[in-house]
Amino acid sequence: MKNFLHEECGVFGTYSKVNSYDAAKNCYFALYSLQHRGQESCGIAVNDRGLIRCHKGMGLVSQVFNDNKIKNNLGVGNIAIGHVRYSTTGNTTIENAQPLYIKHHKGPLAIAHNGNITNASELRQKFETKGAIFHSSSDSEVIAYAITHNRLKTNSIEEAVKKTIPMLKGAFSLILMSAQKLIVVRDPIGFRPLCIGQTENGEIMFASESCAFSILGAKLKRDVKPGEIVVVKDGILNSDETFCRKKPKICIFEYVYFARPDSEIEKNSVYKARIKSGEFLAKEHPADADIVIGVPDSGIIAAKGFAKESKIRYCDGLIKNKYIGRSFIEPTQNIRENVVRIKLNPIKSNIEGKKIVIVDDSIVRGTTSKRIVRILKDAGAKEIHYRIACPPFLNPCYFGTDIDSKKNLIACKMSLKEIERYIGADSLRYLSLKSLKKILDLDTTDFCNGCFSGKYPQPPPKDTEKNKFDRKIEG
Amino acid sequence: MKNFLHEECGVFGTYSKVNSYDAAKNCYFALYSLQHRGQESCGIAVNDRGLIRCHKGMGLVSQVFNDNKIKNNLGVGNIAIGHVRYSTTGNTTIENAQPLYIKHHKGPLAIAHNGNITNASELRQKFETKGAIFHSSSDSEVIAYAITHNRLKTNSIEEAVKKTIPMLKGAFSLILMSAQKLIVVRDPIGFRPLCIGQTENGEIMFASESCAFSILGAKLKRDVKPGEIVVVKDGILNSDETFCRKKPKICIFEYVYFARPDSEIEKNSVYKARIKSGEFLAKEHPADADIVIGVPDSGIIAAKGFAKESKIRYCDGLIKNKYIGRSFIEPTQNIRENVVRIKLNPIKSNIEGKKIVIVDDSIVRGTTSKRIVRILKDAGAKEIHYRIACPPFLNPCYFGTDIDSKKNLIACKMSLKEIERYIGADSLRYLSLKSLKKILDLDTTDFCNGCFSGKYPQPPPKDTEKNKFDRKIEG
Amino acid sequence: MKNFLHEECGVFGTYSKVNSYDAAKNCYFALYSLQHRGQESCGIAVNDRGLIRCHKGMGLVSQVFNDNKIKNNLGVGNIAIGHVRYSTTGNTTIENAQPLYIKHHKGPLAIAHNGNITNASELRQKFETKGAIFHSSSDSEVIAYAITHNRLKTNSIEEAVKKTIPMLKGAFSLILMSAQKLIVVRDPIGFRPLCIGQTENGEIMFASESCAFSILGAKLKRDVKPGEIVVVKDGILNSDETFCRKKPKICIFEYVYFARPDSEIEKNSVYKARIKSGEFLAKEHPADADIVIGVPDSGIIAAKGFAKESKIRYCDGLIKNKYIGRSFIEPTQNIRENVVRIKLNPIKSNIEGKKIVIVDDSIVRGTTSKRIVRILKDAGAKEIHYRIACPPFLNPCYFGTDIDSKKNLIACKMSLKEIERYIGADSLRYLSLKSLKKILDLDTTDFCNGCFSGKYPQPPPKDTEKNKFDRKIEG
Amino acid sequence: MKNFLHEECGVFGTYSKVNSYDAAKNCYFALYSLQHRGQESCGIAVNDRGLIRCHKGMGLVSQVFNDNKIKNNLGVGNIAIGHVRYSTTGNTTIENAQPLYIKHHKGPLAIAHNGNITNASELRQKFETKGAIFHSSSDSEVIAYAITHNRLKTNSIEEAVKKTIPMLKGAFSLILMSAQKLIVVRDPIGFRPLCIGQTENGEIMFASESCAFSILGAKLKRDVKPGEIVVVKDGILNSDETFCRKKPKICIFEYVYFARPDSEIEKNSVYKARIKSGEFLAKEHPADADIVIGVPDSGIIAAKGFAKESKIRYCDGLIKNKYIGRSFIEPTQNIRENVVRIKLNPIKSNIEGKKIVIVDDSIVRGTTSKRIVRILKDAGAKEIHYRIACPPFLNPCYFGTDIDSKKNLIACKMSLKEIERYIGADSLRYLSLKSLKKILDLDTTDFCNGCFSGKYPQPPPKDTEKNKFDRKIEG
Repeated sequence: MKNFLHEECGVFGTYSKVNSYDAAKNCYFALYSLQHRGQESCGIAVNDRGLIRCHKGMGLVSQVFNDNKIKNNLGVGNIAIGHVRYSTTGNTTIENAQPLYIKHHKGPLAIAHNGNITNASELRQKFETKGAIFHSSSDSEVIAYAITHNRLKTNSIEEAVKKTIPMLKGAFSLILMSAQKLIVVRDPIGFRPLCIGQTENGEIMFASESCAFSILGAKLKRDVKPGEIVVVKDGILNSDETFCRKKPKICIFEYVYFARPDSEIEKNSVYKARIKSGEFLAKEHPADADIVIGVPDSGIIAAKGFAKESKIRYCDGLIKNKYIGRSFIEPTQNIRENVVRIKLNPIKSNIEGKKIVIVDDSIVRGTTSKRIVRILKDAGAKEIHYRIACPPFLNPCYFGTDIDSKKNLIACKMSLKEIERYIGADSLRYLSLKSLKKILDLDTTDFCNGCFSGKYPQPPPKDTEKNKFDRKIEG
Repeated sequence: MKNFLHEECGVFGTYSKVNSYDAAKNCYFALYSLQHRGQESCGIAVNDRGLIRCHKGMGLVSQVFNDNKIKNNLGVGNIAIGHVRYSTTGNTTIENAQPLYIKHHKGPLAIAHNGNITNASELRQKFETKGAIFHSSSDSEVIAYAITHNRLKTNSIEEAVKKTIPMLKGAFSLILMSAQKLIVVRDPIGFRPLCIGQTENGEIMFASESCAFSILGAKLKRDVKPGEIVVVKDGILNSDETFCRKKPKICIFEYVYFARPDSEIEKNSVYKARIKSGEFLAKEHPADADIVIGVPDSGIIAAKGFAKESKIRYCDGLIKNKYIGRSFIEPTQNIRENVVRIKLNPIKSNIEGKKIVIVDDSIVRGTTSKRIVRILKDAGAKEIHYRIACPPFLNPCYFGTDIDSKKNLIACKMSLKEIERYIGADSLRYLSLKSLKKILDLDTTDFCNGCFSGKYPQPPPKDTEKNKFDRKIEG
Repeated sequence: MKNFLHEECGVFGTYSKVNSYDAAKNCYFALYSLQHRGQESCGIAVNDRGLIRCHKGMGLVSQVFNDNKIKNNLGVGNIAIGHVRYSTTGNTTIENAQPLYIKHHKGPLAIAHNGNITNASELRQKFETKGAIFHSSSDSEVIAYAITHNRLKTNSIEEAVKKTIPMLKGAFSLILMSAQKLIVVRDPIGFRPLCIGQTENGEIMFASESCAFSILGAKLKRDVKPGEIVVVKDGILNSDETFCRKKPKICIFEYVYFARPDSEIEKNSVYKARIKSGEFLAKEHPADADIVIGVPDSGIIAAKGFAKESKIRYCDGLIKNKYIGRSFIEPTQNIRENVVRIKLNPIKSNIEGKKIVIVDDSIVRGTTSKRIVRILKDAGAKEIHYRIACPPFLNPCYFGTDIDSKKNLIACKMSLKEIERYIGADSLRYLSLKSLKKILDLDTTDFCNGCFSGKYPQPPPKDTEKNKFDRKIEG
Repeated sequence: MKNFLHEECGVFGTYSKVNSYDAAKNCYFALYSLQHRGQESCGIAVNDRGLIRCHKGMGLVSQVFNDNKIKNNLGVGNIAIGHVRYSTTGNTTIENAQPLYIKHHKGPLAIAHNGNITNASELRQKFETKGAIFHSSSDSEVIAYAITHNRLKTNSIEEAVKKTIPMLKGAFSLILMSAQKLIVVRDPIGFRPLCIGQTENGEIMFASESCAFSILGAKLKRDVKPGEIVVVKDGILNSDETFCRKKPKICIFEYVYFARPDSEIEKNSVYKARIKSGEFLAKEHPADADIVIGVPDSGIIAAKGFAKESKIRYCDGLIKNKYIGRSFIEPTQNIRENVVRIKLNPIKSNIEGKKIVIVDDSIVRGTTSKRIVRILKDAGAKEIHYRIACPPFLNPCYFGTDIDSKKNLIACKMSLKEIERYIGADSLRYLSLKSLKKILDLDTTDFCNGCFSGKYPQPPPKDTEKNKFDRKIEG
């Protein structure tokens, strides 16, 4: 199941003027809503009148935290930041879990980071030659050093952060907590989402996605602007727009795959963007079929868009098992070939004898698509027309997703016809980049399409290995 | 969230002539597919040439089992039975987990049970007066005694089982494993589903639902008939139809709510039955609306049926959080009123300004419906027309679900208008029993509608307390 | 390390008239003091005005219980019984953990048992032919059936217990808790210890050993007499002496090995008995040596007695590692031969160049003794005179210890000279049975010496396999 | 029980030329032998041809490691270092667990440290002003920075270490592992022990105490000299004696309390030193008594020395419960005053009616001594003569033990008579410093007696708070 695309982290921060607010517990509930952005490790740091406490662990929010842990390891406080993390490699140790909590010359600092610093290895080397030591392989530690170095030459943490931004290349949606302040930064390209919420009581919140606000009774105020620095101090929010650009070039995959459909990012509903991707797909690549089905969960909404546009009936074709846990057991021989069925099972009565359009958000290696086609044929499908709600992946991503080096991308190695044959579909079509552009309101936001076009909004790192210095994409 | 209806157990059994088949591991994977029928405890018993080993635990299949546990606590064997359990009370101890594994005069016996024996307390008392001791409060132990007592007077375990059936009242889908045999029984009413599968290699399987077969490469052969006893011995399947009735009166809620949509029960597709329930609902109780939405997960498919029939556009309105774990933490004051949002969050862009039909499978206490209406109104819904894919619950269920005593059923305490007002909907309508009957092909199966009509296919227990003798609905 | 002799269980019960006494927590602390009698599983059952709750688990008292478990799984109550268990086989499942808690026709019953019922398999068969089912392989379940059957024919639980005693052969120190009463029974031979304590506040307690009383502020009142039934009801202690014998024939190994040295059993101090065993050993089998050392922990005190009598200086020769945990890891090749050193390490400065008397309590298979001799020789010992504080094991024990069948007892297979040579000692001598008899005050107690002499105070079971019917020695 | 003195860490390192040696597993077994030096957290770092892996956790060696963890988290390698830790405060987080594993400009470095750097806060401040960030409050991170900074200016890790030694004040026994080398350093005072072992196969080992060698089949070669740097590279051991002093001024408490009696430190047997302390105590402060007893475990051997010299019979008076685990439960009211009895229980038969000399290694706050006197009196002791095997603590320790600030030392607040009265003893006497000096062979080693005399071998830190900068005694 390693062929699915993965999101690389979710961040959250909350600030209240009143200590009785219980920032850690509120952060805990918010992380539940961001869990889809990372299931490998999570953590919370809380600020109790200048004293920071931090608790992290491997696993889901519901596994890492319980009443005792929140009470004893975190306790009360009026500011808290939280993080959920997914890592793209087996190298998944507690050392890389976030928030990163460090102490520097001028005090404590906790960092929650979503993104990927493309010049992290250069910066790391620079700091190392000055005597820096690193405990982890994460970008966040590089950011911590950069801020610390600038803090020595400036009068406040916000000035230090401001001096740090031009040093960092790549994608970063950062939430920082110092002894007194909650500081939030988004890279000037605006690769990753980050938004601001507020409750009626005046609590100020920041999150990767707006879906984290509603459980806390907060409302989405606006997105953090690309390049913006937001500082909350003494209950007051201040914005520095020095590095701001007009429109973000946000990762289009936030809409296509990563974000929760109930989130609104850069004034565009994720749900609507997915519906549109299916509609355009139907326009570009119609198919003569009886039903439209989607690959759960991410292909479902685009499939509905395809159905709407094509007037072909939408139908649930594959059921996803909700109870797949971590401690998976090595399958026996007879199960091995059916292994995708643990996760996905067809509704035979809907499939049998039908000509089917199946919509998925993307194809990475092609293995899963191949298995899905097989399942559907076994269930009696007459024809299978595979439709992908984005263009083919032809280039790696350096800005916070795990789209891999070319050698692992099927579209770099096979022609469309070859992939079609490989996965066993009767037809295979991708949405064009031209159409993809129309799924968003481009008046409010632009997007990065480097993985399709190779044209990145920022030069990719010269050294094209994604894992130089044993460094991992972080977030 | 205690207002949702819960299924009461899933059972599985597998038999191979070859020992290298690794029955325990295969059973483990099958239980994954039945996990939706019970998440509280689970267990597997395996038969290694007459020697039975059993491992049980509290929690999900992925939590209770790992490679070590399967290897060391279960090991190899050619027959295995498994169980997933949900219990309706806080009384959720390991003692009540299944399979129940006991030794009697003629050998060992493992039992996996889904259902509820309505005369369990009478039987229990009868055995107790003969000196029986009970370790648990489960029906399964009563069944074990009944079989054991009959075994003393008969020449084989299958004869003992046969003598036991007339003694048991209520619902039971039983999978039994003795030193040599796998025996399967379904009560003569056929309240709970039970079906037979087979692989190309000749492995014979039994499961609550057919969705458990595909991962193991097996195909659904047929349902176990109501009253049928199936014995697998020396690799050969024998059926005893002495107590068989023509058609089961299966619990209609298997189709409406409990079963997985990719299962086929009594030749009726669960998915199709749900679509039909929505279609009939639209015919009976149309509404002037812009969109149709469903309450995840169980109301979604009926909502699609409603949309199909009414020609009103189906739309996703509520997103369900997939990552809700067990170790839930006491919410803070500000979260308390938003608590349903941890599980369900609206897609605002789809809701705002819309007249909405929302479809759910049932209403028990009404609290959740009330919260959902509030969420939708907060998200800007103009009108909310609540449609329920079954008639109102007016009577408790004694046959394997947790539909409670009348005092907890809102429809026993309020009129339709009152419920409508209580939950805050602009209109509220239920599917009629007349229409409900049409969602299944009644040539192949009949169903129990006692919870709506009070007309049970079997007299309910005289003592109408559901928890007499501290006994729990078991499965 | 499987060559050490193991004790087979510890039992405890406490009764207060006041509910605020918190019986479960007091029981928890008492079990700490009895932990040396069984480290494999433990459990507590508490009685809250007739309602019994029970919590058991695998592992040490400190691992099975914590504040949450005591509060949520046990709660308050004025009566509690507890159990620690060691089992002699790999078959160490939670099913065999105690207290056993069952419900019979007349109410609930919890049982904590130390001993071994020698006619358990006959009784089991008898009950099975009447329809009994067994969940475990433990004697305690047989006892539960016997009491239950008698309870049907009598008017009270104490009468049922009284009728049960003549049915049971073998060793049993039983603590029973019914809805109202705490009942304690010791077999008429008095194989296993059992004593009565009382606090100044009037709480009444029972324990395998008196060392359990002091932490609870109780004082040892007296031993339960062999054959005595003690009933505590409404705060009043009543004794039935119908089956009483004058003096117990207690297992001599309680003094030599099992019991804690700070316990007083049958008015004999365990510590003093061990000192005497060493003194008699020195008289019978003197040795020309520079120092006397003991094998930790159980040989240490006898070694001091030897030193006292022989006037040879006692000295610590071997240090025992206190931190040996359960999760032991497979040693590497170079460690394998040194494996006993993980547990025992010599104090080289005390050993080097010395002629040594080393005292141990017993020899079972001889493997450990052989390793110890090797360690001492490696540390530079000039001569090693092995002295054993009891006669050779020549017969299995059927009354509650794991002294095995003859085929595993080195003294059944080798002559003294051969054992001496096998373990590599310069001399090896055992204490004579004649001397062993003198370590206790025989006016107050007699003892069983079946394992040495083959003369058991009660006929051993005819079928001399110790594990018939997969039954385990229980406690 | 917070009144006992605690040792502050154990370190171990092993080096083999052959990779099949399985360094991690050997390290694991060695840590078992050092467990008495720290039970709070532990860890191992292993070097697989330059690649370092590290696993740490809270708890005992037997709890933190199992076969899976060793195999998956550590794996093979020919060099390994390990650490067991005790921390003196509640601030016991995984962040402070060791080995510390960091990456600097020239490669990776793992550090295991026993001791306390008295100028750590100055160094920390110095590094912080250069931009350093700190993840923990441990000295080890300061050492890591010092070495890293020196590494930038030198050509090898050993030169960097050499330049670092003059920068560090205080106590340090360090074991370092780089990509290629195992490097061991002991501070020039030699506060903490550190010794070298070797197997017949040529594996080279280093450990806090020699007792760690025997399980691995190694023999003690010699102690690391005070100020010595030992480098093992390409299988060859090189020593740099630039900073060496002739004799260490080792902490006398290593002999009196911390070390295992089977260890030999600076050519002095720990066991013999304890015996001598008791002998001198008897000479200086004889008592008219019937028996001598010791406080387990550390007072026992000195008590034997007292008995030997005084000719008063040694006798076991108090039994220590071996099964005290971590998850201790809040005692009930009736237990609270008896709480010390959970750990220590008297052997009444030995105590009753006796005039007793009781020997303990030290008195910190006096609370435990007071409780012990009470226990003995309750058991019937006629007179209690408390003898302490060292002089009174009058000064804090800054060099690696948790002897606290004066305000917590009873001897700083009360006169001898007052303490005598406070603990309730009939007489109380301490060993004189003059006699204490004689327990070791001063030709081979000198010792630090700062805690008694206030004369430290090195100036204590100016700022006399022991916890400045939230820094903890580490090691």
